[in-house]
Amino acid sequence: MENKTLVMDYYQLTMAYSYFMNGKCDEVAYFDMFYRKNPDKGGYVISAGLDEVIEYVKNFKFSESDIEALRSKNHFSEEFLTYLSNLKFTGDIYAVEDGTIVFPNEPLITVKANIIEAQLLETALLLHKNFANLITTKASRMKFAAGDLNIVEFGTRRAHEVDAAVKGAKYAYLGGAVGSSCVQAYKEYGVPAFGTMAHSYIESFDSEYEAFLTYAKTFPNNTILLLDTYDTVRSGVENAIKVAKEYLIPNGYTLKGVRLDSGDLAYLSKKVRAKLNEAGLFETKILASNSLDERLISSLIKEGAQIDIFGVGENLITAKSDPVIGGVYKLVGIEKDNVIIPKIKLSDNVGKLTNPGHKKLYRFYDKNTNYAMGDVIALAEEKINQDEYTLIDESGWKKKRLTNYYVKELQTTIFKNGELVYKVPTIEEVKAKVQYELSTIFEEMKRFDNPHLYIVDLSTKLLNLKKELLFKHKEEIERINENGLSKRISRI
Amino acid sequence: MENKTLVMDYYQLTMAYSYFMNGKCDEVAYFDMFYRKNPDKGGYVISAGLDEVIEYVKNFKFSESDIEALRSKNHFSEEFLTYLSNLKFTGDIYAVEDGTIVFPNEPLITVKANIIEAQLLETALLLHKNFANLITTKASRMKFAAGDLNIVEFGTRRAHEVDAAVKGAKYAYLGGAVGSSCVQAYKEYGVPAFGTMAHSYIESFDSEYEAFLTYAKTFPNNTILLLDTYDTVRSGVENAIKVAKEYLIPNGYTLKGVRLDSGDLAYLSKKVRAKLNEAGLFETKILASNSLDERLISSLIKEGAQIDIFGVGENLITAKSDPVIGGVYKLVGIEKDNVIIPKIKLSDNVGKLTNPGHKKLYRFYDKNTNYAMGDVIALAEEKINQDEYTLIDESGWKKKRLTNYYVKELQTTIFKNGELVYKVPTIEEVKAKVQYELSTIFEEMKRFDNPHLYIVDLSTKLLNLKKELLFKHKEEIERINENGLSKRISRI
Repeated sequence: MENKTLVMDYYQLTMAYSYFMNGKCDEVAYFDMFYRKNPDKGGYVISAGLDEVIEYVKNFKFSESDIEALRSKNHFSEEFLTYLSNLKFTGDIYAVEDGTIVFPNEPLITVKANIIEAQLLETALLLHKNFANLITTKASRMKFAAGDLNIVEFGTRRAHEVDAAVKGAKYAYLGGAVGSSCVQAYKEYGVPAFGTMAHSYIESFDSEYEAFLTYAKTFPNNTILLLDTYDTVRSGVENAIKVAKEYLIPNGYTLKGVRLDSGDLAYLSKKVRAKLNEAGLFETKILASNSLDERLISSLIKEGAQIDIFGVGENLITAKSDPVIGGVYKLVGIEKDNVIIPKIKLSDNVGKLTNPGHKKLYRFYDKNTNYAMGDVIALAEEKINQDEYTLIDESGWKKKRLTNYYVKELQTTIFKNGELVYKVPTIEEVKAKVQYELSTIFEEMKRFDNPHLYIVDLSTKLLNLKKELLFKHKEEIERINENGLSKRISRI
Repeated sequence: MENKTLVMDYYQLTMAYSYFMNGKCDEVAYFDMFYRKNPDKGGYVISAGLDEVIEYVKNFKFSESDIEALRSKNHFSEEFLTYLSNLKFTGDIYAVEDGTIVFPNEPLITVKANIIEAQLLETALLLHKNFANLITTKASRMKFAAGDLNIVEFGTRRAHEVDAAVKGAKYAYLGGAVGSSCVQAYKEYGVPAFGTMAHSYIESFDSEYEAFLTYAKTFPNNTILLLDTYDTVRSGVENAIKVAKEYLIPNGYTLKGVRLDSGDLAYLSKKVRAKLNEAGLFETKILASNSLDERLISSLIKEGAQIDIFGVGENLITAKSDPVIGGVYKLVGIEKDNVIIPKIKLSDNVGKLTNPGHKKLYRFYDKNTNYAMGDVIALAEEKINQDEYTLIDESGWKKKRLTNYYVKELQTTIFKNGELVYKVPTIEEVKAKVQYELSTIFEEMKRFDNPHLYIVDLSTKLLNLKKELLFKHKEEIERINENGLSKRISRI
């Protein structure tokens, strides 16, 4: 596979060079990957893309041509380039498994490694996780809207280039689609490939009837006819029924389905269903596509649309309504003499304060219902009380006292001293995990408007550490301003 | 390079199989690629991505593993799989060159080939063009907002996977950015790579001052310091000035720049500029980033923000405000006995009627100013009058009579009988072309709200052909409904 180690921001390399030149090569750093807001103001995110992160880390190596490219920048010494050319990942990675439901500020991945290795992974790790989380979550929302009905991913042509199309089809499948139109995703990941015909097929014949008949003869077992090239109700469905009656049924087949691709899908699907039923074609499925998203699917179902399968395109593959999930990767500690010095980034925005230190993530489940009741982010050395726990949301406004619960730790060890110690699950295993995980959260968390807020608690120890570091830095800032330039120019 | 011929929708293959099984293999088809709406309700699109289309077509070949994947679907005969394994593109492609300004409904690419080859290209062609047009256009809007100031692309981590990051950086550069943070884009395309430091770098030291000083020692010629890890005005800029005065200036260097990455950029940049000036650091540049887009850049400039360079991330690399450009690929003709039979797709929505027949695209330029005055889409066999022309927008509401003009044909021959006959321009050539093209359209077309509407005229012959085909199909639909099932069930 082509090496794309250089899918990184240039500052990863300038920082690495500065660490290298200043004897910080062997300093051990802890980084957390997390995100801050659920996309679409939803109630959860499905974590995915760890498989891609693992591939990147496994293949992490600067090739000769990479080194040549870096040399041409004239910023780096030959010693550093030699160091890079020998570099591989030798640290530890702890991560939440793909398919797990997660929430804002939770450490989805924790990297412990020498600071150069840990820093150099940042961009690729975020790139893979951000897109994977985004599309898997979006697909799960569409599937939630569709209920027992199926959705199929049709967005390849609107994806943001090839990787997004192919990996996006995978994430759509994981999140709840039954398959995709993307053949490369079938080849690479086994995502079931679906497809029938475009308008061009129909237009290429002298008549719609001839086109339908020819297609039926090619795929008598799997005839799905596109109805809207000329007029869905007054031409498409008439010709489809004619082909069913004159060719398919007399030859022992049936009309498997019809597809609507434009217009008012609620109105048209009812008209088409009525005509199909009138013709005795009760089993013929109606597949519909036309800029569908989770809200439109919900609305169509509410309006009584007679649609059996939803084809979703651009709104899924680009997560059009909210196409960015702002995952970040933040330094949380530096190890010196085997002691972790916790680190924090301040911000004018309280929500952007990072959680310092090496942490673990736990989920509380109700013993009777197996529902997830809340999560706690705690320092790695803490023990979680197994008998009684009061969850408090970081805002301080929500509290929940638990007694009848069991606790699961959500991060798993993926790499240990650079070795992959984790068995990457299959696509089908992750897809099954997504379904299971969705069954462990309340339905109220899945609705699209003002979903139920899940409690993510910071342990008392973590909260105290956070405050302590915050105040320490504030004091430092005061000191600078007492001695610094600012006094003289504070009039400005 | 890994073969990704199968980045196609499955229906391309089911249609191809039906053509193959029904003796339509050698029928010659004409397809047009066009889009229907400018993104962000803007006034234009910059056409790009032809380079990627050319690569796909050149490398178009089903590998053994592709054939194996298709065989496993159990839908296709061995004869067809053998046919596919020997297939390469043997047709003609005409296209608008990368960097050209284009408008809705204009044929950006016209493919003339046997119907199977032409059909199989659809998905990849759209995938590449859609993303390229989208990002190049978005970047040009941001650069328009920035005026003489520079923008840099910083969005790798928020891109929709690796291809979008790397190719997106290329399109950002073509559209007007001076460079990108993406190192792989530097390696692959020579897009200038920029970068300095992240918050983690600063946090990894015991103090901000120590971090800044260490960085300055590593890159004394190129010291750009990130100010907002703890407090931009009360800590960051103070420590930056201290490093400049205590280390950089005494050693014959200067502080090249500072970077703001959060907060109110107008307010903070003024405060920081004042402190820098007070310290005599008049030459130090201020780089700012924080969810910037073209509207925010305009607003910051209007508010008198003291920003010299804008770093743009997610809003550019995902075109967040409108992340889909709905490019389509439509059959417009079938050649029989060397005569082109024009084809049309109807729709309930008049705007979605396709323009039938093999067409060419022309642009009228004012002889004195070289401004583009309007375009005409005409049938390929038409001659354009060189002395006088009245442009009429398809809506019929806008008219412009031209006398003092010259005309350019916008499509160029790219492939002829499967051979690439076009010299693909370099990235720098395309970037220069974008700049030139932007100078040929009125400034009023570049504004973000209600931009000036450019006239795209359909020639009288084309318009008449379109109406003729429309009425022919409407008559056919009437015929079906007089004889068909619908009469009996019209009560529904």
